[in-house]
Amino acid sequence: MVSPAFEAYAEETLAKRLWARPGLSRRDRSIATLTVAIARNHSAILSEQLTLALDHGVKPGEISEIITHLAFYSGWGNSLAATAVAKGVFAERGIAASALPPVEPKLLAIDEAAEAKRVASVEESIGATTPCLVKDTREVLFRDLWLRPGLAPRDRSLVTVSSLIANGQTAQIPPHLNRALDNGLTPEEAGEAISHLAYYAGWLNAFSAAAIAKEVIAKRAAK
Amino acid sequence: MVSPAFEAYAEETLAKRLWARPGLSRRDRSIATLTVAIARNHSAILSEQLTLALDHGVKPGEISEIITHLAFYSGWGNSLAATAVAKGVFAERGIAASALPPVEPKLLAIDEAAEAKRVASVEESIGATTPCLVKDTREVLFRDLWLRPGLAPRDRSLVTVSSLIANGQTAQIPPHLNRALDNGLTPEEAGEAISHLAYYAGWLNAFSAAAIAKEVIAKRAAK
Amino acid sequence: MVSPAFEAYAEETLAKRLWARPGLSRRDRSIATLTVAIARNHSAILSEQLTLALDHGVKPGEISEIITHLAFYSGWGNSLAATAVAKGVFAERGIAASALPPVEPKLLAIDEAAEAKRVASVEESIGATTPCLVKDTREVLFRDLWLRPGLAPRDRSLVTVSSLIANGQTAQIPPHLNRALDNGLTPEEAGEAISHLAYYAGWLNAFSAAAIAKEVIAKRAAK
Repeated sequence: MVSPAFEAYAEETLAKRLWARPGLSRRDRSIATLTVAIARNHSAILSEQLTLALDHGVKPGEISEIITHLAFYSGWGNSLAATAVAKGVFAERGIAASALPPVEPKLLAIDEAAEAKRVASVEESIGATTPCLVKDTREVLFRDLWLRPGLAPRDRSLVTVSSLIANGQTAQIPPHLNRALDNGLTPEEAGEAISHLAYYAGWLNAFSAAAIAKEVIAKRAAK
Repeated sequence: MVSPAFEAYAEETLAKRLWARPGLSRRDRSIATLTVAIARNHSAILSEQLTLALDHGVKPGEISEIITHLAFYSGWGNSLAATAVAKGVFAERGIAASALPPVEPKLLAIDEAAEAKRVASVEESIGATTPCLVKDTREVLFRDLWLRPGLAPRDRSLVTVSSLIANGQTAQIPPHLNRALDNGLTPEEAGEAISHLAYYAGWLNAFSAAAIAKEVIAKRAAK
Repeated sequence: MVSPAFEAYAEETLAKRLWARPGLSRRDRSIATLTVAIARNHSAILSEQLTLALDHGVKPGEISEIITHLAFYSGWGNSLAATAVAKGVFAERGIAASALPPVEPKLLAIDEAAEAKRVASVEESIGATTPCLVKDTREVLFRDLWLRPGLAPRDRSLVTVSSLIANGQTAQIPPHLNRALDNGLTPEEAGEAISHLAYYAGWLNAFSAAAIAKEVIAKRAAK
């Protein structure tokens, strides 16, 4: 009623072509798109993207973890807004509380060597000024949140990088893209996730991310 | 009721002074402000800015194209939210569907030489990592969206640059400000658009943009 | 109902631990958090944060000034959205119009020497391109808004820096963090405000700010 062209793009360019492209599974596309909807507080597409994510095989427990993860990575208010909408979608689908991850699951094992390196690098870059941030990053994020088994580290990384792209936080993409690739996201999937997000996060956020990803991937290949 | 000072600024500093300044037409101010309202999802001012845009001579078909353009440049969710509000405003004004641009209009001619340069530069900077983004940029954006005749290239550029300022995407301003100046926006209009946007996009987003614009304009003058 | 873990983090990690940490008063934590809620348009936490701010000793008149200040620093639409919510909270608390700052109070004295330096630096960096932005920065911001007595310059600085962190505007943090430290915010408070904001503004916005703050503080110490 306002833009027939916009509707046509949604149906042809997005639904029929973008989501069907082979370079990234529909499940991964849903994880990335849902992340943007939450991290940018795009309430107009949130309900639809939650439903689509369930249709594409993202489990309710994984959605629960994505929302929790984004509270830390995109701001508490965004995730609180998302829980209200998710509650409705979960109720519609008859998703029971037993499908949701417990507060205190058995955590995944940590890679102590990699974590020691991370801690040393953070300590050097910001330790003196923000000691509590350093401590919370270690204890709350890397010895708790990231080890929760309800969302695989690879998917958690996809969420984190998508959130950074969504909000144009380019400077923080290299370490988290490297982590994503360490966690099993392939360079091809990373590239296609960025191409997909052009439509949902703003084209030029994807452009900036693509240039950074090119460098990160080239550096890894040169090693 | 909460801030008499805020209301006074709105009436005196903005309505009486800012919008009346001679350096930029009211129509252009409306295009820039409406862009921020959509690209930042500022629903509190969206309805008012849509009405104001119509009052200032922005045509319904142009608003339709602005919303579509921003789906690509600021994220799909922002434009979907805007269509819902615009639908109400268009209904109130009795705007008929016949006033809206068709899905497949006769496209503007493309400048093949400039486009070949753009493609080569994008291919070099991100081609290997995100081939589909490169392809969609060429086919969906520059051989389709930008050639739609319902919004003049100069206005499309004003929308694009305003969206970048609104979201603090400073790194992407130079190429799009150059394109805006190529498309007929004058340096004076660009400067006054930035000054205007200080009020709607956050003062320091305008400051960052102003420093970049100064360099872009100086480089063009030196050629 | 959607994420028991998210709720547990809210109760344990945030309410019991974060807000109780000694490095920053609850009042300052409220000013910083309320700023993020307004500057990022996080309506899901806005009403709660307004109530909490009043509980923590932020005066209604100070909230009124924070909203007005953020109209300029985070975009007009954000503050307009906040007034609607604040109106409800103020009514609930029985806050009278007489508790709000007048439109034209007796302004604080300006530091003419510091202001002359600021003007010269801005004039050099953006004067030629955006003359009206330079003029409004001087007249509307630094000879009016910043001198309004209803919010202390130190608190106004805390609001400004928190808004920059909230929206990832890292390039603008150094001058405003320096101003904050000049206005009486201690380096320890600045560090803890950044650590606090990790939870509300997105972890990696805090990380980027922490690295910048470390440099700003080190440079001042070296003088």
